[in-house]
Amino acid sequence: MRPIIGIIGGGKELCNKDIYEYGLELGHSLLAQGYRIVTGGKGGIMEAVSRGGMDSESYFEGSIIAIVPEDNKKSANDFCDIVIPTGLGINRNIVVVNTADILIAIGGGAGTLSEIAFAWQKNKTVLCVDEFEGWAKQLANQNIDNRKSNLLIRVNEIDDIIDILKDFFQNRTL
Amino acid sequence: MRPIIGIIGGGKELCNKDIYEYGLELGHSLLAQGYRIVTGGKGGIMEAVSRGGMDSESYFEGSIIAIVPEDNKKSANDFCDIVIPTGLGINRNIVVVNTADILIAIGGGAGTLSEIAFAWQKNKTVLCVDEFEGWAKQLANQNIDNRKSNLLIRVNEIDDIIDILKDFFQNRTL
Amino acid sequence: MRPIIGIIGGGKELCNKDIYEYGLELGHSLLAQGYRIVTGGKGGIMEAVSRGGMDSESYFEGSIIAIVPEDNKKSANDFCDIVIPTGLGINRNIVVVNTADILIAIGGGAGTLSEIAFAWQKNKTVLCVDEFEGWAKQLANQNIDNRKSNLLIRVNEIDDIIDILKDFFQNRTL
Amino acid sequence: MRPIIGIIGGGKELCNKDIYEYGLELGHSLLAQGYRIVTGGKGGIMEAVSRGGMDSESYFEGSIIAIVPEDNKKSANDFCDIVIPTGLGINRNIVVVNTADILIAIGGGAGTLSEIAFAWQKNKTVLCVDEFEGWAKQLANQNIDNRKSNLLIRVNEIDDIIDILKDFFQNRTL
Repeated sequence: MRPIIGIIGGGKELCNKDIYEYGLELGHSLLAQGYRIVTGGKGGIMEAVSRGGMDSESYFEGSIIAIVPEDNKKSANDFCDIVIPTGLGINRNIVVVNTADILIAIGGGAGTLSEIAFAWQKNKTVLCVDEFEGWAKQLANQNIDNRKSNLLIRVNEIDDIIDILKDFFQNRTL
Repeated sequence: MRPIIGIIGGGKELCNKDIYEYGLELGHSLLAQGYRIVTGGKGGIMEAVSRGGMDSESYFEGSIIAIVPEDNKKSANDFCDIVIPTGLGINRNIVVVNTADILIAIGGGAGTLSEIAFAWQKNKTVLCVDEFEGWAKQLANQNIDNRKSNLLIRVNEIDDIIDILKDFFQNRTL
Repeated sequence: MRPIIGIIGGGKELCNKDIYEYGLELGHSLLAQGYRIVTGGKGGIMEAVSRGGMDSESYFEGSIIAIVPEDNKKSANDFCDIVIPTGLGINRNIVVVNTADILIAIGGGAGTLSEIAFAWQKNKTVLCVDEFEGWAKQLANQNIDNRKSNLLIRVNEIDDIIDILKDFFQNRTL
Repeated sequence: MRPIIGIIGGGKELCNKDIYEYGLELGHSLLAQGYRIVTGGKGGIMEAVSRGGMDSESYFEGSIIAIVPEDNKKSANDFCDIVIPTGLGINRNIVVVNTADILIAIGGGAGTLSEIAFAWQKNKTVLCVDEFEGWAKQLANQNIDNRKSNLLIRVNEIDDIIDILKDFFQNRTL
């Protein structure tokens, strides 16, 4: 199966112009590699990455998945191909984590923190962008508890992220 | 967005050879119309429709979505493009219903019955195939309670299903 | 542990005066036997049974549990001791079924139907009151599918329900 | 309604003898004040506080609630009065947070971190015991993001916790 990259980070309130632009570029680059992306389907970084993917020349249909808290599709942002309405409220965060083969965290407040903590429990790797304030930066290269290690990897440039993803998926059957 | 057709009905235990073959053909016909399909991702009719879609010349990548009870992708059948591992157990049924724009019910035991009851609560139309024993046949053209009506539509031939779907999506913005 | 009796049936819209009064008396009788009750915490039969329990001389604190769809306690009816706010929407129905050691169904539309179907999947016995129109009456003494049997038991008088419950819990460790 | 105190912290793996003994004493003291407690129903600190409550002379029936990941009651520890089997896996953490009127965090790894992050999103106060290593200590008196503040309160002695709880519930209608 085609790899799915999960994007977690601040919603509308916590996402400034710099983060949004980083997201647009990241979405573009991920689609250019043929990855699908999955987000929580709302505003801020979730919208930015989805939009960056959809507006790029690399866009392919079916590549942008949104897993939303509400029970209807209208609640998603305008840049999604496939909307999964969970009706679970913020419990949907864990479905985002389960669906992603690997995650990228950018900025982020309490919601993102809970997702990183979930990812840790589920043994998922999280690439933690250290360019913006928030839990992604704060937890980069840290261990959340002593039961495992090396799941939270500090990253910065989008080119580096793309290289790490290539390595990650190289010898892995999905 | 491209329409998503939800398929509900018996799993491995409740799915005989006739139902499985009907499912294969249905999957083929749905893909030929350019629809995506969503199932609960396990055996029986869920596998049959997914397989019928994937093995047909009309197959296009990203068209077969599985929403599974488990928290990992390996638990899905082998004919899925996009797996959403909910970790919710049989609670995942309601996410299948929420994700589908319209549903097709085939045969079916208690799990299918709960999904038809959910669909009713969420105002979703269910095409109830009356060719096989089960809750789909039993509830075709019936009302589940007196709060709404005409959501459970009796169907039989796959050609008729395709015609009804065309009408259904004609004037609808998804 | 003290047995917990789950009550399922129509909410405010589907609950007429006769059903409500049956519920008041049922709540009273269940508390008099020292049972806890669990409901979905909203109006109609859920309120009636909770209120019948709370207003009776047999009431004991901690006996009336409400498992509500919302994420806050204020959303429950006024006759609950312990409120479990799930934030799961109508997905909370399955938590009600899981929490009950045995269920009593009264009247009921699509929501109740989905709960009876869940109970069947989870091997829970449901006492189906046949005095009022609805899915409880319709499914009394029926089998939902052919994978199991004898889980849906027709009942009518409250005295009979109390006798059946006594037998049911006699040799059972909870 | 009687206040419900949520206890979050390390399960069996992360709970040493000192934490377990602190938990026993805390459970005893909470019951002596007439509070109910709610936990995730498994081992470690969840078991310790429940056991401390159940074994004390202040124990009253119906005071110890367990909200477990599994779909059956047998999965809870042996010191619970009321078991709510969610069938939600680690998603049940948010139901624990929603059910508690206030929380006490002790030690804690990734699971506890996700619960503190949930509590923050739901505007719940968390008393963070600073005596043991873990996320409770690390986040005591910190802010998780800049959207709110003063929800994570550093505590140490059990007597102080009891005083803070008294103040907290004094002018609050539950």
